[in-house]
Amino acid sequence: MKITGLGLYLPPKVQTAHELSKIINKSEDWIITKTGVKERRISEIEVDQMGAIAAKEALDGRVPDLILNASGVSRQVIPDTSVFFQRELKLEGVPAFSIHATCLSFLVALKTANEYLQNGTYKKILIISSDRGSRGRNFNEPESAALLGDGAAAIFVEKPNSNDFSSLEYWKMKTFSSGAEFTEVRGGGTKLHPQDKETKFSDNLFSMDGPRIYKLARKKIYKMLIEMLKNQNIKQKDIDLVIPHQASITAIEAYILYGKFNKDQVVNIISRTGNCVAASLPMALVTAYKDGKIRRGDRLYLTGTGAGLSIITALLKF
Amino acid sequence: MKITGLGLYLPPKVQTAHELSKIINKSEDWIITKTGVKERRISEIEVDQMGAIAAKEALDGRVPDLILNASGVSRQVIPDTSVFFQRELKLEGVPAFSIHATCLSFLVALKTANEYLQNGTYKKILIISSDRGSRGRNFNEPESAALLGDGAAAIFVEKPNSNDFSSLEYWKMKTFSSGAEFTEVRGGGTKLHPQDKETKFSDNLFSMDGPRIYKLARKKIYKMLIEMLKNQNIKQKDIDLVIPHQASITAIEAYILYGKFNKDQVVNIISRTGNCVAASLPMALVTAYKDGKIRRGDRLYLTGTGAGLSIITALLKF
Repeated sequence: MKITGLGLYLPPKVQTAHELSKIINKSEDWIITKTGVKERRISEIEVDQMGAIAAKEALDGRVPDLILNASGVSRQVIPDTSVFFQRELKLEGVPAFSIHATCLSFLVALKTANEYLQNGTYKKILIISSDRGSRGRNFNEPESAALLGDGAAAIFVEKPNSNDFSSLEYWKMKTFSSGAEFTEVRGGGTKLHPQDKETKFSDNLFSMDGPRIYKLARKKIYKMLIEMLKNQNIKQKDIDLVIPHQASITAIEAYILYGKFNKDQVVNIISRTGNCVAASLPMALVTAYKDGKIRRGDRLYLTGTGAGLSIITALLKF
Repeated sequence: MKITGLGLYLPPKVQTAHELSKIINKSEDWIITKTGVKERRISEIEVDQMGAIAAKEALDGRVPDLILNASGVSRQVIPDTSVFFQRELKLEGVPAFSIHATCLSFLVALKTANEYLQNGTYKKILIISSDRGSRGRNFNEPESAALLGDGAAAIFVEKPNSNDFSSLEYWKMKTFSSGAEFTEVRGGGTKLHPQDKETKFSDNLFSMDGPRIYKLARKKIYKMLIEMLKNQNIKQKDIDLVIPHQASITAIEAYILYGKFNKDQVVNIISRTGNCVAASLPMALVTAYKDGKIRRGDRLYLTGTGAGLSIITALLKF
């Protein structure tokens, strides 16, 4: 597969750590030290509109033959958000569906698109991740409330020519449901339905146990990285850029501290955007591309954790 | 692909048209004439448990290398339901994610599994559809409230041997977002968040405009059927069984009235189960299989509409 279009939507409204500090009763310093997030964007438009802006940039006038929504939280329960992207993009008739693996939705959609392209079922696939994490912030849980932000990114992928070297060289996913409760929005589905009296206000908000995720995930991520390096017969220095899910500053810095990458190799946009759920990883990818940090043929290590708890390790030759 | 395992979960509790008639202020006759649903099941366990029961039957002791959730409405906003299936099945480590295309989730998952199998990425995939439609019934909208029911089904798919004739011979999807509002649960996401004062009670419940769906979908389904028959160089009589999404009795009978199939060719379980959202189609498949109506090599026409509005036409050689 070859990424032939990239788009980004950063909502114009900025909320600084200083502004948020008053809402969550923590100091600006506490927020920045704990999460690394100096500011985040707060969207005043809905996820479908956000995603469509990023998608238009990625498409640049081209028409996809499949639209994949790869977001963390949907616009509504049904229909799935892909349909609303299609409507915003005026692409009536084009098939559209959603992939959901919370913060890893983009990486699952990337692999799924790769499978569809490889078999020739589709030739031009649009993947959109758009999340309004700010809508689910629980201000009584200051750490996760300080992490979340809004944003969207989109990519357009095609099957490359036979003489092209772009490809998804490696992709591996593991899910550990022993960590299912570490990141949750417990409501909004059939279990704690909004109509039920026992559903609490906080059930509809984001809850995250950062330390327990870190404890479960760190060694497993490292093991999966080593497996990939061995499988590909490469070393850390052979990777041009590490693009991790922007979960938290601690999670990102672990790739330097434990993953043995240089600071320059690891894309870190969290200080300006926060954790934008599923949109975070493609936003980091598109931002790095726009900053001129990615060239054709570069080896990109795409990785992260998602609620579940799931981990993906992928290697994309750009 | 070859389906090598099938499982079903029918909740034991039955709610008859007579019992429901008192709740929605319509007569038993009105319910049966309008929807064709004489009774539906009401589950007292959660979607993950329902799906796991069906999955255990489909697996029959085998271990999948991928778990796909293909349901219409999830257990909760995050993590996605696949993770909770994994936990119920004690399959820690096995990758799991969700595909969402409302009532067509199963058919999208079937195609996606086919792509993953074809490329050898995975070899044994478990697909589970589990829905508790009864949880989202709006008793002030009697027609949709009378349609919905609960149930779950699961299949296990593998790559067949080279001398095997089982395969997904045809699959085509189209999405028409001009019909996005015809079937909705407007709440539960970022647009009408449960925490918002303007979110109404009914926003969290199922709403469906049957006549408008039928008007938009009937001719399009017929056109897609004709395209498939031409592409495969077959006629209606060459199809052994039509397995449609059990949307409503009108939608099912349209395959006889307009699709020109015989009554015996069309699987109809709606009178005993109602419309079980994404679980309806695999429930019809598994029920027909258990009733001895499907043999190896049979040509199955799998089809239906989903919120979006999306339509899928597929041909599976069993």
